[in-house]
Amino acid sequence: MSDALAGAGLMARLDQLAALSERPGLLVRRCLTPEHARANALVGEWMRAGGMQVRTDAIGNVIGRYEGDAPDLPALLIGSHLDTVVDAGRYDGMLGVVSAIACVADLHARKTRLPFAIEIVGFADEEGTRFGATLLGSRAIAGTFDLSVLDRTDADGITLAEAMRRFDLDPARIGEAARRPEEFLGYVELHIEQGPVLEAEGLAVGCVTAISGATRLTVEIKGMAGHAGTVPMAGRHDALAAAAECVLAVEARAAAEPELVGTVGRIEAGPGAVNVVPGEARFTVDLRAPADERRQAALTDLLEGFDAIARRRGVALKAAKTHDAASMPCAPWLADQVRDAIESEGLGLRSLPSGAGHDGMAIGNLTDIAMIFVRCQGGISHNPAEAITAEDAEAGARVLARLIRNFTPKPRKHP
Amino acid sequence: MSDALAGAGLMARLDQLAALSERPGLLVRRCLTPEHARANALVGEWMRAGGMQVRTDAIGNVIGRYEGDAPDLPALLIGSHLDTVVDAGRYDGMLGVVSAIACVADLHARKTRLPFAIEIVGFADEEGTRFGATLLGSRAIAGTFDLSVLDRTDADGITLAEAMRRFDLDPARIGEAARRPEEFLGYVELHIEQGPVLEAEGLAVGCVTAISGATRLTVEIKGMAGHAGTVPMAGRHDALAAAAECVLAVEARAAAEPELVGTVGRIEAGPGAVNVVPGEARFTVDLRAPADERRQAALTDLLEGFDAIARRRGVALKAAKTHDAASMPCAPWLADQVRDAIESEGLGLRSLPSGAGHDGMAIGNLTDIAMIFVRCQGGISHNPAEAITAEDAEAGARVLARLIRNFTPKPRKHP
Repeated sequence: MSDALAGAGLMARLDQLAALSERPGLLVRRCLTPEHARANALVGEWMRAGGMQVRTDAIGNVIGRYEGDAPDLPALLIGSHLDTVVDAGRYDGMLGVVSAIACVADLHARKTRLPFAIEIVGFADEEGTRFGATLLGSRAIAGTFDLSVLDRTDADGITLAEAMRRFDLDPARIGEAARRPEEFLGYVELHIEQGPVLEAEGLAVGCVTAISGATRLTVEIKGMAGHAGTVPMAGRHDALAAAAECVLAVEARAAAEPELVGTVGRIEAGPGAVNVVPGEARFTVDLRAPADERRQAALTDLLEGFDAIARRRGVALKAAKTHDAASMPCAPWLADQVRDAIESEGLGLRSLPSGAGHDGMAIGNLTDIAMIFVRCQGGISHNPAEAITAEDAEAGARVLARLIRNFTPKPRKHP
Repeated sequence: MSDALAGAGLMARLDQLAALSERPGLLVRRCLTPEHARANALVGEWMRAGGMQVRTDAIGNVIGRYEGDAPDLPALLIGSHLDTVVDAGRYDGMLGVVSAIACVADLHARKTRLPFAIEIVGFADEEGTRFGATLLGSRAIAGTFDLSVLDRTDADGITLAEAMRRFDLDPARIGEAARRPEEFLGYVELHIEQGPVLEAEGLAVGCVTAISGATRLTVEIKGMAGHAGTVPMAGRHDALAAAAECVLAVEARAAAEPELVGTVGRIEAGPGAVNVVPGEARFTVDLRAPADERRQAALTDLLEGFDAIARRRGVALKAAKTHDAASMPCAPWLADQVRDAIESEGLGLRSLPSGAGHDGMAIGNLTDIAMIFVRCQGGISHNPAEAITAEDAEAGARVLARLIRNFTPKPRKHP
């Protein structure tokens, strides 16, 4: 075992990256900012030290390539993102980049070449913090970049196109970031879980089965406002009471089957006075499942349930879909190799879906994907309290290193 | 029947009062404004035309006195308020003043003196629109005026004391508005129902049994925030789901007995993002009943229910009382005379509580009270859509006139 995979070294690099922030006292690093350039430069330095050739692609992703035992072999793509939310933790995204570089540096230190190339990518934007559109880096590589996003502006009114020019990138050449499926053998991402499952089960790492699909709704209810003192209960059409019933229906339906989650995160009642029966209510629903047909079935049940509640209460209810993303399954042949690596490291095995979105959602349109989750404290993420242990960081890196060493491309079907 | 009680005349006077507004295009007349002075002047003119002696008291109430068949007899006090909410209807308050003046004008036209005096009061402030403290006019008369309110400021930073000075009133002499119980035989107020009960039952007027007591709570729940995709349902401590259960508990408890009403008018969830499990929720409760012990029993049940919900869900819940007002029962001997007057007018009889507050809440501390409700369209109030018919206005005035003509003071107990 080389020093490259040591937990302390990984943690030190994560601290170095966390110091590259747009604002003092908290971590925020949005894509195409000077701090993004510094993060790319630092990561590029580490890549070069690990024996890789480094370039920045047309959207600002930093990419290091470690050749196989022959030139121009197809590559195993490994990566995660280098951008953050506002007031972020230091592991979300960065852990996957730092761990992958350590794995290649370990191969390089042993002067080992494999029968395939390795490319490590630090994606320019996954969170969408700056322009409100997520997965800009991975979509550019997958060839699914939506060009209309170039006109979006950040909080200072700067368009994405202008931000690219200031980053020495040419928006007209963004298509050059797109890669061809035959260049890759698969994609593996290591990421903190951002949830509490591994911690609850006492496990350092887990194997992801799928990135859950998600549907979001905004539901509006119109009942009849009235005086809280003068309208008898029997004559009410209370929009908030109807919404409360819907909130509990979301919770009950999601709890009724494993791996389905349903959340009402926002709610409001109008007119919103202590002494007025609400005539209006509005709430959001976020529904996720690793299997699209189960998410769809739950959605159908919920919408029928909402309608029944509204009919019974004599209120009008309108549900509008504001977001709908299909799930991205991890490829069984590749996830099996993740599981083998976990067990070969002597670690307990847990397969679980990813309820959060990741770059693999975009890259899955280019090549087969798999993901390794690393335990994080309390499941907390998108928060400075985000925390992992050096031991878990090392365990994750060792699993990834073993996966790489043992990696077997998907058997081609005979024609 | 004299012309004084004709519905068309009452409606015309209500229109005249509605024209006295601080803002063009909507009705708002806060206490101690120039428009209040104009309303007092107009009402005083009508009172004088109806044979009354008119004065303005130390808080700005306009008071007309119609002597009985001997000087200085104790008076039956009749009144309502002349102030409004912002963007008000034109009947809330004013109908009671205009109807009472019509009844006395009717006596005056017939040259009738009764064996008691009548005083009609147009209260300066019931709504509390300007200084956020309600019932200023009736509290001053009842001798329960809270002097600390003199330092409250309106939206322009003007204190109540300063507003009184600008109205030619001396804040130091506010105690002179207080009256003695022996000056009065009782208090009767005619008011629009501000609720849907009479309309639903096809009745023009109703007899109030009590002004309901009210308790208001602010309830805060702290659970655990989390990622809407990554926290399994079984591990959640969703503050909003707990709040939703409480909302339905309020509704169910209030619906379980007649004349009890319970309302959740405001709710919010924090952090309030579509993709975050709410870690915090806050809502209000408004609970009213004509019988204090039933309100207290319901409150106890609700607080126990909230605690059980919180315990079961592993969230922390804190309920704080923000308002607690005892009910003010109408005096049975006086309410019986209201009921007799309704039936003698050939109208259907319905007794009901007042879920809304009225000046009688304060005056009830000075003398026995009763109230006559007049049907309003859709139960709508505190809104320009507030509406009554001329026929119902006349029916109400006739009931009040009959009550006055037939009024019998409470029999004194023999020593």
